[in-house]
Amino acid sequence: MKLAVLGCGLLGGSVAAAWRRSGRAGPVSGYDVLPQRTQRAMALGVVDRACASVAEAVADADCIVLATPVGSMAALLVELARLAPAHAIITDVGSTKSELIAQARTALGDRFARFVPAHPIAGGALPGIEHASADLFQGCWVITTPQAQTGADALGQVEANWVACGAMIERMSAQEHDRIFAAVSHLPHLLAFALVHLVATQVDGERKLRFAGAGFRDFTRIAASDATMWRDIVLANRSALGQELAQFRGQLEALQSAVDSGDARALEQLFAEASRVRRAKSFRAGDGNHDL
Amino acid sequence: MKLAVLGCGLLGGSVAAAWRRSGRAGPVSGYDVLPQRTQRAMALGVVDRACASVAEAVADADCIVLATPVGSMAALLVELARLAPAHAIITDVGSTKSELIAQARTALGDRFARFVPAHPIAGGALPGIEHASADLFQGCWVITTPQAQTGADALGQVEANWVACGAMIERMSAQEHDRIFAAVSHLPHLLAFALVHLVATQVDGERKLRFAGAGFRDFTRIAASDATMWRDIVLANRSALGQELAQFRGQLEALQSAVDSGDARALEQLFAEASRVRRAKSFRAGDGNHDL
Repeated sequence: MKLAVLGCGLLGGSVAAAWRRSGRAGPVSGYDVLPQRTQRAMALGVVDRACASVAEAVADADCIVLATPVGSMAALLVELARLAPAHAIITDVGSTKSELIAQARTALGDRFARFVPAHPIAGGALPGIEHASADLFQGCWVITTPQAQTGADALGQVEANWVACGAMIERMSAQEHDRIFAAVSHLPHLLAFALVHLVATQVDGERKLRFAGAGFRDFTRIAASDATMWRDIVLANRSALGQELAQFRGQLEALQSAVDSGDARALEQLFAEASRVRRAKSFRAGDGNHDL
Repeated sequence: MKLAVLGCGLLGGSVAAAWRRSGRAGPVSGYDVLPQRTQRAMALGVVDRACASVAEAVADADCIVLATPVGSMAALLVELARLAPAHAIITDVGSTKSELIAQARTALGDRFARFVPAHPIAGGALPGIEHASADLFQGCWVITTPQAQTGADALGQVEANWVACGAMIERMSAQEHDRIFAAVSHLPHLLAFALVHLVATQVDGERKLRFAGAGFRDFTRIAASDATMWRDIVLANRSALGQELAQFRGQLEALQSAVDSGDARALEQLFAEASRVRRAKSFRAGDGNHDL
């Protein structure tokens, strides 16, 4: 199938490279709102054609992949309703699903049946097309959140593309997806941003950061993430994230009491349970681990 | 100088190995409350003599290193007041300082001048004497928090031992030490424990953990830490930690408003500032980075 990738960053580039290498996707057209990024994708050989517009990129596409920050996908879907070939499958790699699906339903109308909401869990790699890799999705989960109207053929083709490049598929509702990733991805990002921001704005912040070691480094790795991208994700998933954050704040309120009153038993119980769970948890070999 | 190491874990073993290799410390006596740990230290060649009691370990020591969890150091100091040779320097590797210094002052009386409070910042390595290494402190900070009564000779010798194995010394007040590490070490541990505990106790916790990726992995690495050790650290530093936690909760309260009201500007500003600071922060090469 002829592929159009909209957004030429780490994920867009890796989808292009991985799907093409699997043999399931043919020539790849690339477009990015920043022309130098499209050119870079072309120069790196990640896409076969650098396009100057969405219209040019999707003109003869069989499958269109949205790989921009989630905040700009709604506007792209409106364009695609007009520009995409009637038969083309439209899919995405966004980190949030419910809001995007609602936007796609409105924007695409009848063509909503050709939209396959998807989310590859491929964090940890450095951002930018320079780090794109056909191996990025090897052993990764890809979550699909099909709706009642989603065409079985479109869904099957997108899932087969992912499986062909080494990923494992899990279907779930968009609501469950958003709740899961609010807890295990979006909330940790929020907390890491919040801690670095807190320390950085304290009067002795610079001195504190000077002596920060490996624990702080790993805990805050994700606070080096792109601010605009994460603003979009938080806004798009604010309902589920707001609930997880409220629960976490309740947990911290209890911890504050335990710390202030020196409640050794409560502290040890909570730490022991967390430590047991964390030690038992293994992570996929494909999870990158880069210091930023 | 003849060395006695009390506590044969990662840090005790690494101090023995590093100080001996530097040529500044001679034969090393090891003692641990668990005899199998003392035997293991001996079998690994990390200590030269496996001792069955504190008395035996310190009998002819010139320098005694407390390398047990901070919660058990107070009782050891009481023993040392009785058992340690009069000329022996006593030092420690604990993560908190103010409370320990107060305990040492009470326990040691006149001999408090021979006590050198110290904290090597060598996180990230796996726990246990099996992972002890003479290289652990290469390029690390070692914080010393001498008091007015601390003997210049004792302080100088301990600092020279650390410098001889590649560490860098920073002197500061115990209060500043405790405030810094409350913010950049103890609070992140508390937050990581809290997040893993929260997710693990939710009804869909197991499913959430199933799809957790690299961000969650790194953010929660420190939640695999030993519960008893961290209970002790939190209790010993509860005053400074309680204040940092309260400030962090204030930050989260503001973030909750921004998330709930969809305040894009506030979110982006906070994320951008945190991201800028985190990207600018480099970490020492010596910082370990092990997945647990």
